[in-house]
Amino acid sequence: MIIVLRPDATKKQIDHLIEKVKKLGLKPMVSRGVERTIIGVIGEEDVLRVQPLEAFPGVEKVMPILKPYKLVSREFKPENSIVDVEGVKIGGKKIAIMAGPCSVESLEMLMDVGKKVKKSGANILRGGAFKPRSSPYSFQGLGEEGLKFLKDVKKETGMKIVTEVMDTRDVWMVEKYADILQVGARNMQNFNLLKEVGLSKKPVLLKRGMSATIKEFLMSAEYILAAGNFNCILCERGIRTFEDATRFTLDLNAIPLIKQLSHLPVIVDPSHGTGKWDLVSPMAKAAIAAGADGLMIEVHTNPEEAYSDGEQSLVPYRFDVMMKELKAVAKAVGREI
Amino acid sequence: MIIVLRPDATKKQIDHLIEKVKKLGLKPMVSRGVERTIIGVIGEEDVLRVQPLEAFPGVEKVMPILKPYKLVSREFKPENSIVDVEGVKIGGKKIAIMAGPCSVESLEMLMDVGKKVKKSGANILRGGAFKPRSSPYSFQGLGEEGLKFLKDVKKETGMKIVTEVMDTRDVWMVEKYADILQVGARNMQNFNLLKEVGLSKKPVLLKRGMSATIKEFLMSAEYILAAGNFNCILCERGIRTFEDATRFTLDLNAIPLIKQLSHLPVIVDPSHGTGKWDLVSPMAKAAIAAGADGLMIEVHTNPEEAYSDGEQSLVPYRFDVMMKELKAVAKAVGREI
Amino acid sequence: MIIVLRPDATKKQIDHLIEKVKKLGLKPMVSRGVERTIIGVIGEEDVLRVQPLEAFPGVEKVMPILKPYKLVSREFKPENSIVDVEGVKIGGKKIAIMAGPCSVESLEMLMDVGKKVKKSGANILRGGAFKPRSSPYSFQGLGEEGLKFLKDVKKETGMKIVTEVMDTRDVWMVEKYADILQVGARNMQNFNLLKEVGLSKKPVLLKRGMSATIKEFLMSAEYILAAGNFNCILCERGIRTFEDATRFTLDLNAIPLIKQLSHLPVIVDPSHGTGKWDLVSPMAKAAIAAGADGLMIEVHTNPEEAYSDGEQSLVPYRFDVMMKELKAVAKAVGREI
Amino acid sequence: MIIVLRPDATKKQIDHLIEKVKKLGLKPMVSRGVERTIIGVIGEEDVLRVQPLEAFPGVEKVMPILKPYKLVSREFKPENSIVDVEGVKIGGKKIAIMAGPCSVESLEMLMDVGKKVKKSGANILRGGAFKPRSSPYSFQGLGEEGLKFLKDVKKETGMKIVTEVMDTRDVWMVEKYADILQVGARNMQNFNLLKEVGLSKKPVLLKRGMSATIKEFLMSAEYILAAGNFNCILCERGIRTFEDATRFTLDLNAIPLIKQLSHLPVIVDPSHGTGKWDLVSPMAKAAIAAGADGLMIEVHTNPEEAYSDGEQSLVPYRFDVMMKELKAVAKAVGREI
Repeated sequence: MIIVLRPDATKKQIDHLIEKVKKLGLKPMVSRGVERTIIGVIGEEDVLRVQPLEAFPGVEKVMPILKPYKLVSREFKPENSIVDVEGVKIGGKKIAIMAGPCSVESLEMLMDVGKKVKKSGANILRGGAFKPRSSPYSFQGLGEEGLKFLKDVKKETGMKIVTEVMDTRDVWMVEKYADILQVGARNMQNFNLLKEVGLSKKPVLLKRGMSATIKEFLMSAEYILAAGNFNCILCERGIRTFEDATRFTLDLNAIPLIKQLSHLPVIVDPSHGTGKWDLVSPMAKAAIAAGADGLMIEVHTNPEEAYSDGEQSLVPYRFDVMMKELKAVAKAVGREI
Repeated sequence: MIIVLRPDATKKQIDHLIEKVKKLGLKPMVSRGVERTIIGVIGEEDVLRVQPLEAFPGVEKVMPILKPYKLVSREFKPENSIVDVEGVKIGGKKIAIMAGPCSVESLEMLMDVGKKVKKSGANILRGGAFKPRSSPYSFQGLGEEGLKFLKDVKKETGMKIVTEVMDTRDVWMVEKYADILQVGARNMQNFNLLKEVGLSKKPVLLKRGMSATIKEFLMSAEYILAAGNFNCILCERGIRTFEDATRFTLDLNAIPLIKQLSHLPVIVDPSHGTGKWDLVSPMAKAAIAAGADGLMIEVHTNPEEAYSDGEQSLVPYRFDVMMKELKAVAKAVGREI
Repeated sequence: MIIVLRPDATKKQIDHLIEKVKKLGLKPMVSRGVERTIIGVIGEEDVLRVQPLEAFPGVEKVMPILKPYKLVSREFKPENSIVDVEGVKIGGKKIAIMAGPCSVESLEMLMDVGKKVKKSGANILRGGAFKPRSSPYSFQGLGEEGLKFLKDVKKETGMKIVTEVMDTRDVWMVEKYADILQVGARNMQNFNLLKEVGLSKKPVLLKRGMSATIKEFLMSAEYILAAGNFNCILCERGIRTFEDATRFTLDLNAIPLIKQLSHLPVIVDPSHGTGKWDLVSPMAKAAIAAGADGLMIEVHTNPEEAYSDGEQSLVPYRFDVMMKELKAVAKAVGREI
Repeated sequence: MIIVLRPDATKKQIDHLIEKVKKLGLKPMVSRGVERTIIGVIGEEDVLRVQPLEAFPGVEKVMPILKPYKLVSREFKPENSIVDVEGVKIGGKKIAIMAGPCSVESLEMLMDVGKKVKKSGANILRGGAFKPRSSPYSFQGLGEEGLKFLKDVKKETGMKIVTEVMDTRDVWMVEKYADILQVGARNMQNFNLLKEVGLSKKPVLLKRGMSATIKEFLMSAEYILAAGNFNCILCERGIRTFEDATRFTLDLNAIPLIKQLSHLPVIVDPSHGTGKWDLVSPMAKAAIAAGADGLMIEVHTNPEEAYSDGEQSLVPYRFDVMMKELKAVAKAVGREI
């Protein structure tokens, strides 16, 4: 931790600060420059981080040196983590493909989509039974009935299930059906929900909040690991920027960046990230080229009739075409689908 | 709803779309221009809004005309809503002042701050017993014990209490102590929490999400009103932008804009909005000049020792000075404190 | 300057870096912590700032301590600068009011608007003869003819003239007519233009770029002062954010922030900043309450016929009403109009 | 153009608007809905676009239907444009590789880098002789001397030259040396510069402004084409967002999106876009997978000594490794390097 003092900081203020640092069991190193004094603090930075040092008189700014996350950091665990979802491995050489409709609408439709995406090479079925909708008047999901449909398709196809949980009260019920518990972008800083899924034994897919920095994203993952659940998969799904030609700005820079900072697997959702079905395939290819460990793709047999997000869903035929193209790109970067 | 077709849309595609609109009980009005065809749809736009029209072949874009919120809109209720908090009125001529520490840390400190801000003119006490912290290793709040301290200070000073609830499971417990239930920025789209506080009889203070548009903010308030609770106060608290000299960018434009679109009262939190105590006073004055119905201000007797947000807290003396200045500005715009 | 090394930095890398720092005539102070080593550098930070230290092996990050601007900083000149525009003072107790149409369209209209805003209390006439338009097919301004019209209205009303210059080739021609040379938001980092107006003896009004941080804004002003022109006025005019309900997000936080960091006067343009005429008045009041030294307001006698920006222009009557309200707010914060 | 009226618009206001539309030679189509009236306008939308319709009483909002750009649009020219730079074709099957130092620093260094990147497969040499620097105290480029060095390296290696021009006064001088005139991100809306390079016969590389929407980016390109120069190459180089872990957020979504909207070739600059050399290679691969027609990469033999941007430059060895990887990705998506 570096504490930079104002040019006009008094000796008394500086001494007061040094005293404070010492009282916390840390060692201050004072450098008096021509223009101002800085105090470097050696020792466990965490003790200091929770102190409102910028509120001290005479302090101009405080600069942390160490990263605030620990368990998710690559320094804590240098090798890549591989999350095992009943045999489907996420984070290894093979790229995981999660596909399915935005919402679970009916068993028939889900079974149809499930069989088709399975055939094209997907190994995990996505589908929301609880839907976070910006309007209270929009379809809110089928609830537990939808989870049952997911289970039925799993039984038939062997695909694993990833589905969203939105409420701390629902975690244990959803866990009975899901193979991966998804925490959505709007709940990325719903810290109680993070703690609750952190207690589960099921892997968690954590989506990046639409205005979350990479650091905040990793801090939210830290909540899950700190609660005991190390099976955490991170998902980039687009951030909010001034650009309005796409629904969000899918931030592929996040992939190599997170790979440097953390050992956790990273997947990408180009369907929500762009909001346009005709951008899904090029961005999916780009995601794999940038090093993503998996993809989450919305597929619907009849997007015109979808209860939600029809405009960003692929029809099964286009999904199939895309999967072939993805295989070539994966191979080019030493991966497999 | 206006549906703009691609220049190359075929007659068959257009007919298919017209058919769809009619099937929904709406009336399409087709205008064939030189460059392209557009279809205007008359009738209840909501029926159409949930349809993924952009997924239809031949469609270039879909432009809604009506606003997606109803109960919160000024069209629904032309006059200003006044929320009555046990006699303290928010939204009328008098400006409400909420003040207190970021977190409830101890009864002693809370009582001290409470008495002081009361004396300076604050009428509502703020203080978090449940704290959303980006790090799992930071102080998470005292929980129910903190709520009891708030109640104690209320008994002594007569101030009303506003405090945050973060978890659907806690709503009914927090409601026993709070006079206003606060939903924080990070939970603005925690829709289950919105529904739950919408069932309460206590007023709700809804903070704007850090990347929420005004439209989304109003849609979240719509959840609360749609659940039956019309006592909703909106709070601008800073949005996330590229600017890093302040913690957030406090968006005062939101005040006159929301006043045009909605009948709900709007208050401003310049402490979180700027993240710097020395910007709080000028931005508080600006908020009142722009038409805010209230302010929420962090005050701490010893910011250096604050468990959270010390760098943005005012000491009671500065709060007192600011209150005097605010009174002059309020008077200049025909309001009172 | 603080150089933070990677945890795995080798002794050789550290020595290499120390050598580099010494060779530049600076004094490295090495602190070896448990987790990593940091090097503090005492001396003229500027020498180091231009070095790509992050490219050195073993370096994790480099944190500057001092601000990169000098002449514009409050440390360089503690008291407020007052820019004198032929007797109209900007930056003192009296608030400067610049008003007029977006574009100069005709002498008749300009004279009409000029006389009316003068009567309401404006002392500087704004009006663009060179217009930066996003479309090549939009009206691009009257050029030198427009400047002559401005001069004519000055002769008649005594108002001073502020007008934009867009091209280095035009600076000396525009200077013959203008009392204040305006550099627009889109040219805030047109460094050659900054250097050119820096050579002028006329005051410069520099508008903040729509994605410029406060630091970058001040760095651009530094170009003007470094070229010899200390008569520089800064203008906040809205930044680009995700919010699309307003044309830009007028960032009033910039006012008190710049006041802390710099001695230069700061004015606000709520017309461009919001893009909506009905937000101009509340945001103008807020700007003054926050400490602005002046306002720039678009006024048009017939916004329906305006060649540009009609939707954000006030009619003279509304401008007059606003001016009365502004006077009350100015008085409340110890200023005058 | 769709004009949406306020619910309370009077008959007189509506008639006034209809009259206005007719006077402009356009045909209004009035639809009176239950909640409000809308007016669709058939005919040349451009006539209307320049009218400030939102300033008319009774108007709530105005929604353009057609795109404001013409010559750059794919509707104007359905097939891809291929820009021919003395035989090097940009926009065809073969991907163009532009590489070199950020700034031209010396002939020796430039020659060294030029020969090395040529050997690895680059065919266009980049290097700035005029540098837009945020600080007036930073190295500003060698000017015409730097251009001569570029020409020398061209003579020796056969590589074509791309270099930035910042000032309208310099266009014709720079044109004598450059094969491609680069307009930088900070000048994307320096409309006079766009007009000037539009008069040149040399191809123009237009970089996206850091806060420019895709629409504004295309509008700026429209300036160049409208002036007569159809040899325009677009370059995505990162946009400004709240994320601070990278220098900018490289927006790869722009590639497929621009490809849909325009016939112009699109290249990507991952060096400036990320600001970190270790993100360049993954993002370069992703750019090609997403459909980019070329790349612009900073390479420096000794980044530690670079006059600018050392932290984002690759050393020639890493550039060579990357080129091999890029070839595999290009092949996987049906392209060549």
